[in-house]
Amino acid sequence: MSGSTLGTLFGVTNFGESHGPAIGCVVDGCPPGMRLAAADIQRDLDRRKPGTSRHVTQRKEPDTVEILSGTFEGVTTGTPIALVIRNEDQKSRDYGNIAETFRPGHADYSYWQKYGVRDYRGGGRQSARLTAPTVAAGAIARKWLGENHGVVIRAYLAQLGEIAVPFRSWDDVDDRDANPFFVADLGFVAQLEAYMDALRKSGDSVGARVNVVASGMPVGWGEPIYDRLDADIAHAMMGINAVKGVEIGAGFASVAQKGTDHGDEMTPAGFLSNHAGGILGGISTGQDVTVSIALKPTSSIRLPRRSIDKAGNPVTLETHGRHDPCVGIRAAPIAEGVLAIVLMDHALRHRAQCAGVSTGTPQVPARA
Amino acid sequence: MSGSTLGTLFGVTNFGESHGPAIGCVVDGCPPGMRLAAADIQRDLDRRKPGTSRHVTQRKEPDTVEILSGTFEGVTTGTPIALVIRNEDQKSRDYGNIAETFRPGHADYSYWQKYGVRDYRGGGRQSARLTAPTVAAGAIARKWLGENHGVVIRAYLAQLGEIAVPFRSWDDVDDRDANPFFVADLGFVAQLEAYMDALRKSGDSVGARVNVVASGMPVGWGEPIYDRLDADIAHAMMGINAVKGVEIGAGFASVAQKGTDHGDEMTPAGFLSNHAGGILGGISTGQDVTVSIALKPTSSIRLPRRSIDKAGNPVTLETHGRHDPCVGIRAAPIAEGVLAIVLMDHALRHRAQCAGVSTGTPQVPARA
Amino acid sequence: MSGSTLGTLFGVTNFGESHGPAIGCVVDGCPPGMRLAAADIQRDLDRRKPGTSRHVTQRKEPDTVEILSGTFEGVTTGTPIALVIRNEDQKSRDYGNIAETFRPGHADYSYWQKYGVRDYRGGGRQSARLTAPTVAAGAIARKWLGENHGVVIRAYLAQLGEIAVPFRSWDDVDDRDANPFFVADLGFVAQLEAYMDALRKSGDSVGARVNVVASGMPVGWGEPIYDRLDADIAHAMMGINAVKGVEIGAGFASVAQKGTDHGDEMTPAGFLSNHAGGILGGISTGQDVTVSIALKPTSSIRLPRRSIDKAGNPVTLETHGRHDPCVGIRAAPIAEGVLAIVLMDHALRHRAQCAGVSTGTPQVPARA
Amino acid sequence: MSGSTLGTLFGVTNFGESHGPAIGCVVDGCPPGMRLAAADIQRDLDRRKPGTSRHVTQRKEPDTVEILSGTFEGVTTGTPIALVIRNEDQKSRDYGNIAETFRPGHADYSYWQKYGVRDYRGGGRQSARLTAPTVAAGAIARKWLGENHGVVIRAYLAQLGEIAVPFRSWDDVDDRDANPFFVADLGFVAQLEAYMDALRKSGDSVGARVNVVASGMPVGWGEPIYDRLDADIAHAMMGINAVKGVEIGAGFASVAQKGTDHGDEMTPAGFLSNHAGGILGGISTGQDVTVSIALKPTSSIRLPRRSIDKAGNPVTLETHGRHDPCVGIRAAPIAEGVLAIVLMDHALRHRAQCAGVSTGTPQVPARA
Repeated sequence: MSGSTLGTLFGVTNFGESHGPAIGCVVDGCPPGMRLAAADIQRDLDRRKPGTSRHVTQRKEPDTVEILSGTFEGVTTGTPIALVIRNEDQKSRDYGNIAETFRPGHADYSYWQKYGVRDYRGGGRQSARLTAPTVAAGAIARKWLGENHGVVIRAYLAQLGEIAVPFRSWDDVDDRDANPFFVADLGFVAQLEAYMDALRKSGDSVGARVNVVASGMPVGWGEPIYDRLDADIAHAMMGINAVKGVEIGAGFASVAQKGTDHGDEMTPAGFLSNHAGGILGGISTGQDVTVSIALKPTSSIRLPRRSIDKAGNPVTLETHGRHDPCVGIRAAPIAEGVLAIVLMDHALRHRAQCAGVSTGTPQVPARA
Repeated sequence: MSGSTLGTLFGVTNFGESHGPAIGCVVDGCPPGMRLAAADIQRDLDRRKPGTSRHVTQRKEPDTVEILSGTFEGVTTGTPIALVIRNEDQKSRDYGNIAETFRPGHADYSYWQKYGVRDYRGGGRQSARLTAPTVAAGAIARKWLGENHGVVIRAYLAQLGEIAVPFRSWDDVDDRDANPFFVADLGFVAQLEAYMDALRKSGDSVGARVNVVASGMPVGWGEPIYDRLDADIAHAMMGINAVKGVEIGAGFASVAQKGTDHGDEMTPAGFLSNHAGGILGGISTGQDVTVSIALKPTSSIRLPRRSIDKAGNPVTLETHGRHDPCVGIRAAPIAEGVLAIVLMDHALRHRAQCAGVSTGTPQVPARA
Repeated sequence: MSGSTLGTLFGVTNFGESHGPAIGCVVDGCPPGMRLAAADIQRDLDRRKPGTSRHVTQRKEPDTVEILSGTFEGVTTGTPIALVIRNEDQKSRDYGNIAETFRPGHADYSYWQKYGVRDYRGGGRQSARLTAPTVAAGAIARKWLGENHGVVIRAYLAQLGEIAVPFRSWDDVDDRDANPFFVADLGFVAQLEAYMDALRKSGDSVGARVNVVASGMPVGWGEPIYDRLDADIAHAMMGINAVKGVEIGAGFASVAQKGTDHGDEMTPAGFLSNHAGGILGGISTGQDVTVSIALKPTSSIRLPRRSIDKAGNPVTLETHGRHDPCVGIRAAPIAEGVLAIVLMDHALRHRAQCAGVSTGTPQVPARA
Repeated sequence: MSGSTLGTLFGVTNFGESHGPAIGCVVDGCPPGMRLAAADIQRDLDRRKPGTSRHVTQRKEPDTVEILSGTFEGVTTGTPIALVIRNEDQKSRDYGNIAETFRPGHADYSYWQKYGVRDYRGGGRQSARLTAPTVAAGAIARKWLGENHGVVIRAYLAQLGEIAVPFRSWDDVDDRDANPFFVADLGFVAQLEAYMDALRKSGDSVGARVNVVASGMPVGWGEPIYDRLDADIAHAMMGINAVKGVEIGAGFASVAQKGTDHGDEMTPAGFLSNHAGGILGGISTGQDVTVSIALKPTSSIRLPRRSIDKAGNPVTLETHGRHDPCVGIRAAPIAEGVLAIVLMDHALRHRAQCAGVSTGTPQVPARA
C-alpha cells in the first residue's frame, strides 16, 4: 500500500500541497446511515485553522471543506467520502531563494534528495497545513465513535516550552476551546500570553506537549501483534508534523517505576490506577486511553541559521513571514482527530473479527 | 490486512503462543540472491534468549530456528521465508488459577473480553516470547541492510530503573554483548548487578530505557504522509511488549527546546547536530536514526496484587515462577530487529518509487 | 484496506457518485519526475466519454479533469495525484420511482440490502460513469509505462453480440479510435452500425467482448502466489462494470487443448506461440500480455421487466432515458486503463524486490 | 503488501517449495470460538492429494497437516493459525538437466529472469503442490461459513478436454467425491476413464473446466469499486496454478445475450434466473454464487518439446516422471477452498462496515 493512507478499514487517503489548487482526503470504509454534513467537519477545521489569535500564524485560510461524495440526503452511504479544501491564500511571490536552499529543521533537503523535485511553495507537501484533511477525517470518526459507542476524545496543551500546565479537571478540559492555547486551566492563560509575546519578539520558537484522552472506551479494541492499538496510535501520532515523541499511559515515567507502582490493580469496583493508559497487550481495557505527544519547536524562525544550497555552498537563512512560533498550540484538534481515526479503525476491525463474542464476565468499571 | 503482519513490502507475519507447539513467522518480500543460513538468524536469537544470566528469566528455551522455505542452496530465492521455533520448555503443570483470574498489568482481562477464549499457558500470545520471531526476521533485514547499504544497527540499555547509563562511545556500544545488561559502558555493570540482585530479592520489578541507533543511513527513505519513517518506527517499537513510549531524536526534550536549539544546521561539511534523529518530514536525512524506548516494569512479580476472577470476585495474586525482573534487559536485540525490519521495508518502498532519482546535489556528510 | 483502492504501490482510490458533486480518484505512489498535464489524461477520458456517436448514451458530460495535487511545474513530484471531474449533466428530475424499486440486472437491490441507504440518482455509485476516474489514472500509468519501458497497451472490440470481428493486424488496431466501435477492422463498421440501429430500435441491449494487449513487455513482472500478474489483471478487469468473464491467453479454449497444442515452445529466436498470454507462473514472459473480457448487455432497456419494490410488491419497469445499448462499445479505453494500472503496479513491485537482478541469460525475443 | 497473502481480513499467507522442508500457511483473522481440529482440515487435503487413482500423479504425499498455533483446547482463539505440511516424498535425484533448461509451458524461464535464482526441484514454488496450503486454509473458511451462515460450497469437473459433463442435480454434485474425476454425473465415469487411459498412453495432456457454486448466500457481501466480490473471486481463481479463464454467472455467454435474456427478473417469490451468478454491482444478491474456471493442459508431458537452456542454446525436452495428465481433475477441492476464503473475507469485511444495517425490505428468495 502506498504511504498516504491512514487506517485499514477506516482508511484516510491524504492529498495536496500547501500552495497547490487544493488539499483534501478520501475517507473509505465509513459505515452507512450516519447523518453527516459539512458543518460537522467544519467545526473541527475551524478549531485548527490559522489566524485565530496573535499567538499563531497570521496566514488567512478559511479552510472551507466541501463533501464531494459518499453522502446522500445528509446521510453517509457507505461509499468513499471525498473531502476537498481549496487553497485560497496563495500569495503570489518570489520563492527563488527557498527553491535553491534547504531550510534547517525542515524537510527540504530530505525531500529533494528523495524525489529530485519538490514543490517548495509554502513547504509544499511538508506543510503542517496538510494536517487539515486529517482533522476533517477525524471529525467523521469522532462523530461515529460518539454516536455508536459514547467515546469522547479530548486533547489539551499540557506544556508550552518550560511551562507545564497540570491537569485539573475534565471541566477545565471542556473549556479548552475558550482560550487560544487549548490549555485545560484558564488560570495559566495570562502567563502563557506573556511567554508567547516575549518569544515572538525574540524571533525564536519553542516546543510543546499535548495530551489526548479517549473516555468511554469499550474493552477489546486492538490486536495483539503487531497492530496493537497503542502501536497504531503511536504510528498515527508520530505521523503528525513536528511530533518527536509518543507516550501511552505512564510513558517514559515507566522506566523508573517499580512493578508495584506501575501495574494497575483491579477490584470489582474497577481499576485502581491507569498507568497502562487504557491498553494492555495492545487491546483496550475500557479505561481511558491516554496519550501524550512532544512537538518540536517550529523550524521557521527569524533568527539567522546556517545551511547549504543545492550546489552545496554555505548560506545563511532567516525566515520571515507568517509562521506559528509554537506549532503545538494548534495541535490539540489534530491529536483529537488522529486518535479518533485510529480508534474508529479498530472499532471496525474488532467487530469484523469478534462481533458476537460474549464472555459472561462482568466488565470492570473504568475507574481511576 | 489482518493485524499480525509488520511491514508493507518486507512483510513479517508472526504466529504462535508461548506454550503451543511452535512460534515463528513468514517473511515475505525479501530480495533474492542473498546468502542466508539458519546461523545468521540464530546469532540474534541467542542474544535475546532467556537464561543467559541470573538477571533474566531462568526459563530454558534453546530457541532453535528452522528455515522451512525461501532459500535454495544457501541463497534467498525471493519467495517467502518461513521460520519456525519449536517450543520445548513447556512445563506440564496446573494452570487452573491463571485460567480463572486476570493478572494485573497483563493482558489477561483485555484478551478475555475481546476473544472470549484465551490460551493462558505462559501468557499465550501475549508472552514476550513472541518477540523471538521478530528478532529472527530482523536478523534477515539487518543482514540485507548491511550488505546492500552499509547500515549498522545497535541498541543498548540506557537506563535501568533510576540508574541512567550514559552513552560514552561506539566502541563501548560494540561491547554491549559482553555484559548481561547490554549496557554500553562496562563500568556500570557492578552497580547494575547489585541493583538487580536487590530487586530480585525484593520480589519487585523495574522498568528500563533502551536506545537504538542506525548508522550509515542513506538519505531519502520514508514517505511524507502518513507512512513516515519515524511513524513506522514508532508503530513497530510500540508493538514490542511492555513498551510505553517512543522518542525520535530529541524526543520529549524538544518540548522545552527553542528553535535555535533544536533545528539542526547544515554546512558543506555536514549537519552540526542531530536533534531530528536522522528524520525530517518523515524521510531519512542520512544522519544516524536515533530512537529511544521506555519499557515498563514486568507485571509478574512475587508480591501480592489485587485483581478479580472471571466471575468478578476479588482475588489476591502472587506470581511465582521464572520471570524477568526487568524485561528491558533483553530488549536491546529486539529493538535492533524491529528497527531493521522497518528500515528494510522503507528501503524497498523507496526504490520502488524513486529508483533512478538523481539530483546532482552533493549529499551532506552525516556528522554530529 | 478498504475496498475502493486498486493497486498496491501504484494505488488508485476511487470516489464519487453519478449525480453527486464530483467523481475522481487519488493516485498514490507515482514516481517523481514525469511530465504530466491534464491534457495527457483528458485524451483517454475523451475516448471514453459519452455522446460521441448515436450508438452510445447521449448523456452530455464533458468529463473535464482537474489535477489538484502531485505535480509541480508540469512534473510529478512523487506525492499523491488527486484528480477531480465535476458532474455537470445532472438533470434535475423526479427519481421517485427509481428510489422505491429495484431495477433488474442492476445493483439496486444488493446495494440497498447491504447499506440500507443508496444514492439512486443515475445509478449512484454503481454507474458505469465511475470508470472515468479509472481511465484517468490509467492514462498516468500508460504514460509512465511507455516512457520507461516502451510498453504499449491497445484494446479493441472483438465481438458485438453475435458479430465477431477478428483481429487482422496491429495497423488496424491503431485505427480503432477512427470508428465509433473501437473495432480493429474498419470493414466491419457498416455491419455493426446496421446491427446497432436495429438493436436500438428494438429497445433491447446486447453484450460484447473486448480484447486488450500489452506489447513490449519486460520479463519478470508479477509474483508467484497469490498476487500473480494474471490474478491481479483478472481482479481489475472483473472490477469493471458489466464484466462477467476474463481470459488470459488461450483462456477457455485451453479446456479442449492438448498439452502439445497449448504449451508455448521456445527457440533462441523466440517463443513459437503465445497461448500463455505472456504470463507463466504469474510472471510476465516478455511476450504480449493478452486479455479478453466479456461484458454483459446493458440492464437498462426500454422493454418491460418484472421486479419488486422496497415493500416487496411486484412491479413492472421500463427504463427510458439515455443509456448505452451496448456498454462494451465504450469499454476499450477502460480496459486499456485498467491493464495499465495493474502493469505499472507490478513494475514498481518488481523493482522494489528485484532491482539489480541479473542472470546472464539472454532474453528470448517475444515472437508469435 | 507482499504478494503471498490472499485476503484482507481473513488473510492467508502461503509459503514453501515443492521439495523444501515444508509448505504451509498462516491464517490471520479467523474469528475466535470456532471448534477446529487438524481433522477438519485434513479432510479437504485428502480430497486434493495425489495418488488417489491412476488418472492423477502417482507421487505419494500424505500431506499431513499440523496446526502450530491459534487454537486452544480445540477452539480457535482469534490469533494466527499456522499450518504446516512437511514434504516427505522428496526423491533424491539428479536435477541437473532441469536446472539448466526452461521447460516449455512452465514458469522456469520467467522465474529465472525475475529472481536470478530458482529452486528447480519439482518445480519449486511454481509447483501445483503449493495449492495444498490454500486448500487447508479454505477448509477453515468453509467450516466457518457453514456454521455461521449456512453457506455450502461445491465444485465439480464440468468438462475434461472435449467431453462436457452437464450438470444434472445437486444430488449428483454431492456424489462428486465418489469418483476419481469429481464429476457430478457418475454416468460419465466410464467414458472419462477410457479417455484418460488413452491420453496417458499418448503421452499428452489435456485441459479442463471446473464449476464452483456457493449456495445459501446472504445478500450484501462485496464492495462496489474495486474490491467487488466477483473481482476478488476472479483474482483468487486466476491465482490457482494453470487457470487461464474465470467466469461469473453467464460469463462469456453474456457476449451474445440480449438484455432481455441476461437481466435476472425478480418477483416476490424470488429471482427468475441467475445469469448474474449471484453478484450485482460487486455485491452478493443472495442467489447462488456461480463461478467457472478454465484450466490449461499440464505442461509436463512425455512428448518432445523444443526449448532453450540458460546459455540460450536450443534443447529438446521430454518430461518423464509423475505428473497429472490433467491438472483439472484435482482442481475441484482447490476451487472450493479458494471460493471459501474469498467469501469469508468478505463476510468479515461486510460486518466490519455494515453490521446492524436493517432495511425493512424483505429478502428475495434465492430461486432459480
